[in-house]
Amino acid sequence: MDFKLNILGTGAAVPAHGRFSAAQVLETHNKSFLIDCADGTQHQFLNCNVKSTRLSHIFISHLHGDHCFGIIALLSTLGMTGHTNDIYIHSHPDLEALLRPMLNYFCFDLDFKIYFEPFDPLTSNIIYEDRSITVTSIPLVHSMPTCGFLFREKEGAPHLRKEMLDFYNVPLSMYPSIKEGADFVTTDGRIVPNMHLTTPPSPAKSYAYCSDTRYTERIIPIIEGVDCLYHEATYATPELDKAKKHLHSTAAEAATIAQKAGVKQLIIGHYSKRYDTIEPLLREAQAIFPATTAAYDGLKVRF
Amino acid sequence: MDFKLNILGTGAAVPAHGRFSAAQVLETHNKSFLIDCADGTQHQFLNCNVKSTRLSHIFISHLHGDHCFGIIALLSTLGMTGHTNDIYIHSHPDLEALLRPMLNYFCFDLDFKIYFEPFDPLTSNIIYEDRSITVTSIPLVHSMPTCGFLFREKEGAPHLRKEMLDFYNVPLSMYPSIKEGADFVTTDGRIVPNMHLTTPPSPAKSYAYCSDTRYTERIIPIIEGVDCLYHEATYATPELDKAKKHLHSTAAEAATIAQKAGVKQLIIGHYSKRYDTIEPLLREAQAIFPATTAAYDGLKVRF
Repeated sequence: MDFKLNILGTGAAVPAHGRFSAAQVLETHNKSFLIDCADGTQHQFLNCNVKSTRLSHIFISHLHGDHCFGIIALLSTLGMTGHTNDIYIHSHPDLEALLRPMLNYFCFDLDFKIYFEPFDPLTSNIIYEDRSITVTSIPLVHSMPTCGFLFREKEGAPHLRKEMLDFYNVPLSMYPSIKEGADFVTTDGRIVPNMHLTTPPSPAKSYAYCSDTRYTERIIPIIEGVDCLYHEATYATPELDKAKKHLHSTAAEAATIAQKAGVKQLIIGHYSKRYDTIEPLLREAQAIFPATTAAYDGLKVRF
Repeated sequence: MDFKLNILGTGAAVPAHGRFSAAQVLETHNKSFLIDCADGTQHQFLNCNVKSTRLSHIFISHLHGDHCFGIIALLSTLGMTGHTNDIYIHSHPDLEALLRPMLNYFCFDLDFKIYFEPFDPLTSNIIYEDRSITVTSIPLVHSMPTCGFLFREKEGAPHLRKEMLDFYNVPLSMYPSIKEGADFVTTDGRIVPNMHLTTPPSPAKSYAYCSDTRYTERIIPIIEGVDCLYHEATYATPELDKAKKHLHSTAAEAATIAQKAGVKQLIIGHYSKRYDTIEPLLREAQAIFPATTAAYDGLKVRF
């Protein structure tokens, strides 16, 4: 099933005019996953026309303010607008102690529960799983424990070939077992192999979010071949020294990771406030990895 | 000296498209005073082209999220952008305990200090004073302890009449005492009364901020005759029952307060999300008090 990615914010630590800081919503399998939640994210749901109704899981890459300062306001507003899904916040273990006093004061009467799901950002593990997808942490290299997130769809069931099922008069009650790989035996004893009754499942989709990070090839085995990679590109190459100092990446480095990992497409974002226009960042990334898109607040990508 | 009021947000508890929640910046005497600080306020400084350089004092009317969720993000960004003025946060005493864990975690290395200046919102007191202005709390009627703020300029010194000082050959060294009311004695012993050497000081300016509140005439003696009153107008009169239930005001009630208090101009704001257009609120307020302006995010008023 398609992934629909909504970019809510493309700014870095210091906000720039027209750019909110890090927040994205990934929609798939009738669920919405919020990735990072900077100050003002609740406004970006409105501004970018993204619904929060199906939101249940929030993934926080690291505890810098431009990735988590918007959580309380978002939860408070969800509480006032009829949200009922419980909310699970996946983050570094420190977050709960930071938010608890405010949650107890401002969000004590919500119609949903809030659960903290702490994990270690410095190891790669499956930190969330449901029947459709898994989310795996991607350890990154930054000034505090930070990870990205790999959203990988589970391989679906084969598709039933309706015309063949009708042809062999397969009873409806057998559809589930055929979807699971069973052959069919006709009333006169002939065996119809499963491969005649089904087509292979749609390819499982995958999305990797990598922000914030210094250039590191250690992530390549984890993100290899994903359908879409979002990689931070805080700086352009002339500011490589700043990227190294602040443990961020240049656009060229993001593109190099995309190329070496053989991903299908790259989206860059998390731009330093110094760039009024992101044209130079896009240009240097596309020179290395042509299938690059420069994110902007409100960008929607389906893959 | 003129007051310059910058409205950064005009929304209420639940944000509406195009409206941030409560935040204003009052600029006068080379200082900036931030009044309330909703989620996303740091972005509104940029969007509304308001500088934060001279910011030293933040006044929080009450501890509902739409009036204070943006403080941490603002302070953190000030810390990253070279701000050096110490910041004093004037609020209900509970705020410090709520913000301390996050301040200690996210804002431990600022180039300025943060001081909490707690006060009791339920009594009217001078809560801030410098040589140019006083700020007085205005107890309001809301679902939690809430107050407005009266900014009142102190009466300035008389203006020197340069042509008269020159005419009488008043030495420069005597200017300060003449500004303070002294007469001048000429070399041949004639007394020149002070009133010939000065003109009266400019009228002292005043601004009252009243949000959030149910209609209450108890504020009238405090705000009487101010140059500008900002009064919340969450609802229009058809929703008076909601205004009563949620302890807010209608636009007509805001206008009635303005009229009874004999203020020079009224600004309404803090609009419920239900109003896509604020025309009906403005219309009902102007029918009672014609000198009403409907605030919008980015409005600047000088008085």
